[in-house]
Amino acid sequence: MSLTISIDAMGGDHGPVVTIPASLDCLKNNPDLILILVGDETVLKQQLANTAGDFKERLLIQHASQCVEMDESPSKALKNKKDSSMRVAINLVHNGQADACVSAGNTGALMATARFVLKMIPGIDRPAIISTLPSIYGHTHVLDLGANVDCTAEHLFQFAVMGTELVRAVENIENPRVGLLNIGEEDVKGNEQVKAAAKLLENSALNYIGYVEGDSLNAGAVKVDLIVADGFVGNVALKSIEGAAKMISNGLKMAFGKNMLTKLAGLIVYPVLKSFKQSIDPRLYNGASFLGLRGLVIKSHGGADALAFKTAIQLAELEIKKDVIKKISEQVEKSLALRESA
Amino acid sequence: MSLTISIDAMGGDHGPVVTIPASLDCLKNNPDLILILVGDETVLKQQLANTAGDFKERLLIQHASQCVEMDESPSKALKNKKDSSMRVAINLVHNGQADACVSAGNTGALMATARFVLKMIPGIDRPAIISTLPSIYGHTHVLDLGANVDCTAEHLFQFAVMGTELVRAVENIENPRVGLLNIGEEDVKGNEQVKAAAKLLENSALNYIGYVEGDSLNAGAVKVDLIVADGFVGNVALKSIEGAAKMISNGLKMAFGKNMLTKLAGLIVYPVLKSFKQSIDPRLYNGASFLGLRGLVIKSHGGADALAFKTAIQLAELEIKKDVIKKISEQVEKSLALRESA
Repeated sequence: MSLTISIDAMGGDHGPVVTIPASLDCLKNNPDLILILVGDETVLKQQLANTAGDFKERLLIQHASQCVEMDESPSKALKNKKDSSMRVAINLVHNGQADACVSAGNTGALMATARFVLKMIPGIDRPAIISTLPSIYGHTHVLDLGANVDCTAEHLFQFAVMGTELVRAVENIENPRVGLLNIGEEDVKGNEQVKAAAKLLENSALNYIGYVEGDSLNAGAVKVDLIVADGFVGNVALKSIEGAAKMISNGLKMAFGKNMLTKLAGLIVYPVLKSFKQSIDPRLYNGASFLGLRGLVIKSHGGADALAFKTAIQLAELEIKKDVIKKISEQVEKSLALRESA
Repeated sequence: MSLTISIDAMGGDHGPVVTIPASLDCLKNNPDLILILVGDETVLKQQLANTAGDFKERLLIQHASQCVEMDESPSKALKNKKDSSMRVAINLVHNGQADACVSAGNTGALMATARFVLKMIPGIDRPAIISTLPSIYGHTHVLDLGANVDCTAEHLFQFAVMGTELVRAVENIENPRVGLLNIGEEDVKGNEQVKAAAKLLENSALNYIGYVEGDSLNAGAVKVDLIVADGFVGNVALKSIEGAAKMISNGLKMAFGKNMLTKLAGLIVYPVLKSFKQSIDPRLYNGASFLGLRGLVIKSHGGADALAFKTAIQLAELEIKKDVIKKISEQVEKSLALRESA
């Protein structure tokens, strides 16, 4: 089975310093994997000087003369950066040379370029960003995390259809439990958008379990596999959780740093705290998929280090193996046919 | 100075078992405080049997024959429960017998009743719920936390005006820093509602610092005193933070409970963890104010214990002392005049 991934090697806050070590690590872990590093050939070859030989047939370089800046406007990137590492990496997916693309670059530009080059799956209006969060049940898939800020009920429904198929494929769950993010669990709660989406979900073949509140992302009363939200709300929730985790982590550090005794106590429990911290390490949850496109694009956090970027590449590997795009396309077609015949 | 608070003694998941001990504790702490317990006289007297004498002139009972259920619809409560402990407690504020009311009852019913009885401050369209969250800078005030699910830019602006006045009064900060909750800090980010609200805030006399993201609630890159959001978004963010804190707290417990050695380590650092946990104890942040009404109403969490309910009563004491309602009314009038003359 072909397993070729194009890497936007210049993308992200750190570029090749991060993307190359992560790529090499993935090649070492998976003998079936082929990676195409896209970027400035000279820079990449320099960075690879001592190691490239190890994987010579599985590590290719594709030159690209430009680079999309992290704060560049999506429309400008689309217009002026036709030979950017990002664009060329996506082109490789479009023309079938790669099965997926991974980039830590500018989210807006990546989304706009991916949409322009790869096009949408018929029946889907807008792409959505899906990722996973750690939870007391393992983890939860959540979409949309910020691609769409003014969603209709129909958009939320489409997100649920695509998300269900992704979760089904990557988690091997037959009927993923779908929750709709709201500010209460009672029917009367919520805004018009959410209430209308609930009706669409209730009348669908999806395993819709009803409204869930923000705490369900990490620690709800019942397990939910997929949480659907407007991109504005989903993004605020995600960032709020990041802030809470940061505050708690800072607070623990300060508490243990208080005096000699607490410092000593901190040393004693260091392995315990470390193992727990690792279990919710955001780097192990790095990588968001753009759903709704006719090709696989994985977005890594811009500030990702090599471990985090490696996680994103591994997510791409998993989604290729599980044939996620094909399954989503088929399911979207089926679910649209079902609704039209209803 | 008069400092009289009516207590919906029957409200919340636990009723008098929680509201009475909390009330007694507040009376003990503040010799100027007068509390009016509103509810079933027989039940309240029974509960008070051994203690009431201690504060006989400062602990009054006002009989109310009904009780609003936690899941009762606001409109039904408003129509059918005219002698509920909640309604009577609010009536006492309306007719001037109390300076504020505290209830742990059904949020929707409390809001609807408060709005019906007390009426809105002229110039304000909708009441908003404001509360504080712990942050790495101390704490952050946030509104709206769920009263309004489809806000216009004008509503968000009104929330900012009211919230600024509250923060100025209770925190003694001359020009509270106001942030608008969004999914990015760049101008192009956000939905139409937020972009339009940003324009109103930029052209106002408020100390508007721009967009902030979800992580600013607990741990942003810069300090912000007041964060303004649509009630849907604010509520999801609040609950998401609660879920994250719960997951981390559970995870730490499990990590320390792993084996004999980790249990021993846990014992050693128990005081350190406990003191940190206390610093972010949600019970010490209990109590949300309904802003925009012509009277002070404080909502306690429904599941509050005596410590949490005490915090809510103390918030009412503080807001009475700081004359928050009067200050907000004056400021709203001023800011409306300013905009009309502009």
